[in-house]
Amino acid sequence: MKRGLRLGIDLGGTQVKLALVDGGGRVVSLKKVDTPPVPRAMVSAIKKTLAPWFDRSLLGTGVGVAGDVDSHRGVVRISPNLGWKNVPLKKMFSEAGLPRPLYVENDATAAAWGAYHVELKRRSRNLIVLTLGTGVGGGLVLEDRLYRGASGSAGELGHMVIDPKGPACPCGTRGCLESFVGGVQLVRYARRSFRREGKPVPAELTPHVLYRAARRGEKAAKRVWERVGRALGTGLSNLINILNPDTVLLCGGVAGAAPLFLPHARAEMERSGFAAARRAVRLRVSTQNQHLGVVGAALLVP
Amino acid sequence: MKRGLRLGIDLGGTQVKLALVDGGGRVVSLKKVDTPPVPRAMVSAIKKTLAPWFDRSLLGTGVGVAGDVDSHRGVVRISPNLGWKNVPLKKMFSEAGLPRPLYVENDATAAAWGAYHVELKRRSRNLIVLTLGTGVGGGLVLEDRLYRGASGSAGELGHMVIDPKGPACPCGTRGCLESFVGGVQLVRYARRSFRREGKPVPAELTPHVLYRAARRGEKAAKRVWERVGRALGTGLSNLINILNPDTVLLCGGVAGAAPLFLPHARAEMERSGFAAARRAVRLRVSTQNQHLGVVGAALLVP
Repeated sequence: MKRGLRLGIDLGGTQVKLALVDGGGRVVSLKKVDTPPVPRAMVSAIKKTLAPWFDRSLLGTGVGVAGDVDSHRGVVRISPNLGWKNVPLKKMFSEAGLPRPLYVENDATAAAWGAYHVELKRRSRNLIVLTLGTGVGGGLVLEDRLYRGASGSAGELGHMVIDPKGPACPCGTRGCLESFVGGVQLVRYARRSFRREGKPVPAELTPHVLYRAARRGEKAAKRVWERVGRALGTGLSNLINILNPDTVLLCGGVAGAAPLFLPHARAEMERSGFAAARRAVRLRVSTQNQHLGVVGAALLVP
Repeated sequence: MKRGLRLGIDLGGTQVKLALVDGGGRVVSLKKVDTPPVPRAMVSAIKKTLAPWFDRSLLGTGVGVAGDVDSHRGVVRISPNLGWKNVPLKKMFSEAGLPRPLYVENDATAAAWGAYHVELKRRSRNLIVLTLGTGVGGGLVLEDRLYRGASGSAGELGHMVIDPKGPACPCGTRGCLESFVGGVQLVRYARRSFRREGKPVPAELTPHVLYRAARRGEKAAKRVWERVGRALGTGLSNLINILNPDTVLLCGGVAGAAPLFLPHARAEMERSGFAAARRAVRLRVSTQNQHLGVVGAALLVP
C-alpha cells in the first residue's frame, strides 16, 4: 500500500460520504453531502463538493455503492436503495475529472476491505465481514485478498436462506438471514409480535428503541433480540462451515446490540458439530469505526 | 504443474484407492485395497500394495481422507467414517517410506482439486464442487487456488443449515443440506414416506432404486427427487450468493439422478433475486469421472 492520499466515496441510500484517506487508512478529511439519488445530479454535486481537494496529488478514487456492482467495468448493475439500474459510474466519475485510477465496488465489500486494513490491521488472512444495518450486507477477504467472485457479486451474505418458512424478503425468497436480522425486518417483526401480545407499540420503533427496551428488561423486546441471535447463529455456522475463516467481524448499527443477541448466536453455533472450524474463528464486533465503508473504498486504490 | 508421476491415495470408509497419476491428471495405474480402518494396519497394507511402484521416481504423495483434516500438519482430526481421531497420517506415511513430499487433505477438497484440473481443465477460476454421495461433501477452488480456510476445514458445504425444522443430522443440527440430499438421509425419508402412504418399501432401497422407480413414473419416488431438488436449489442459491462462482460441479453417485432433481433445483434458484450472480454460473454434472478424488489427491503434489 503506497503512502499518499486517496479519495474515498461511499454512496448510500440517503447520504454520500467523501473522504481523503492515507495509506494507513486514516481519514484526513471528511465531508457528507445530501444529494438527490439521480446519477447525473449526484455526480455533479460530488464534483462540486470535491473541487477544493483537487489540487492535491491524489493517488486515485475508490467508490463503494449499495447495490450489485460489476467491479470489472465499474457499472452499478442494480441498486434498489438508490433506484439505479445499469449506471456506468466509473465512466461518469472519470468524465467528471475525479482522480484516476477509479475503482467501484459494492459498499459492503469495500467496508470489508476497510475493516481488514483498519480494524484487523491485516492480521486476518480469511475474514468475513457482516454489515448489520437496515439490511444485511457482507464482504469477504480470502487469502489476504478482496474476494469479488466471477461477476463482482460475491458476499451477498444477507440473502442466504436459513428457513424456507421464514419471513418474505424483497430479494424474492423467504427466510433469508436479512429477513430475520435486518433492521427494517426485525422492527417489522417486533411491531407485529407486540401487537399480538397486546403490548403498546412505541410511535417510533427502531432497533435502538428495541435495544433500550430490552436493556430495561422488557421481555417482548428481549425475545426480539433472542430471535435475531438464533438466526444470526445459524447464518454464522453456515459461513464458518463453508469458509472456515479466522475472523468474523460484525459491523453496522444493529451490531451495537451485540450484547443482547450474541449469547443466543453463540448458543446456536455450539450446536453444530464442526468444532475445528468453530475453534479457529474469532467473532468480533466493531461498533467504533463509523467510516469503514469510505475508508475501504479509498483503499481500493492500491 | 511438473510432468512426471505422483502417487494418489483416496481413503474412504470401506475402500482405499491408490493411483499413479501424471501431470495432466491421467491415471496411469490404479489399485483398490480393502483394508481394516485401523490406522496402523491400513498404512502397512497400503505400503505393501505400493511396493511394486516404489522403484519409479515419484514426485510425491497426496492423500484424501473422508474427515476433518489439519492439512498444515497432515493430521486427521476426526473421521466419523473411519472411526479415527487425531491420526498423524502424514507422519505415519512418511515413516512407512512413501514418496515425499506428502500432502493430506479432506477427500472432497481433493476431489475439487481433481475436478478443477481434469473436468474443468483449469478453465474455471472460482469453482464449487459438491459431492453428492452417502453424505454431502464439498470443495472450493477460489481464484485458481485450492481454498483450505484457517484450519483446513473449509468446504463443509453439506452441513449448511437450510431449514431449522428439517431432519436431524449426526452433525448436531437439523435441516442441513445433507439431511435432505445425502444418500443415507434421502433413502430414510423415502422409506418413511412410502410407509406413510401405504406403499410397499423395496427390500433394498438405495438412491439408484429410487432413481429407476422415478424413471418408471412412480409418483412417490418422483416426489423424493423433487424434495432433493428443492433443498439442493436452496443450498446452491446460498452458495452462489455467498461466493459468486463461475462454475458449480455436482459429482458423486447421487449426482447421477440429476435429470430428476435438477429441474426442481433450478426452479428454486430462480426465486432468488440476485440475477447477476446466477447468470454468471454454469451448473455442471459430472458422472463420468470416477477417479476425481484420487486424481485430485495426487495433484496436491505440485
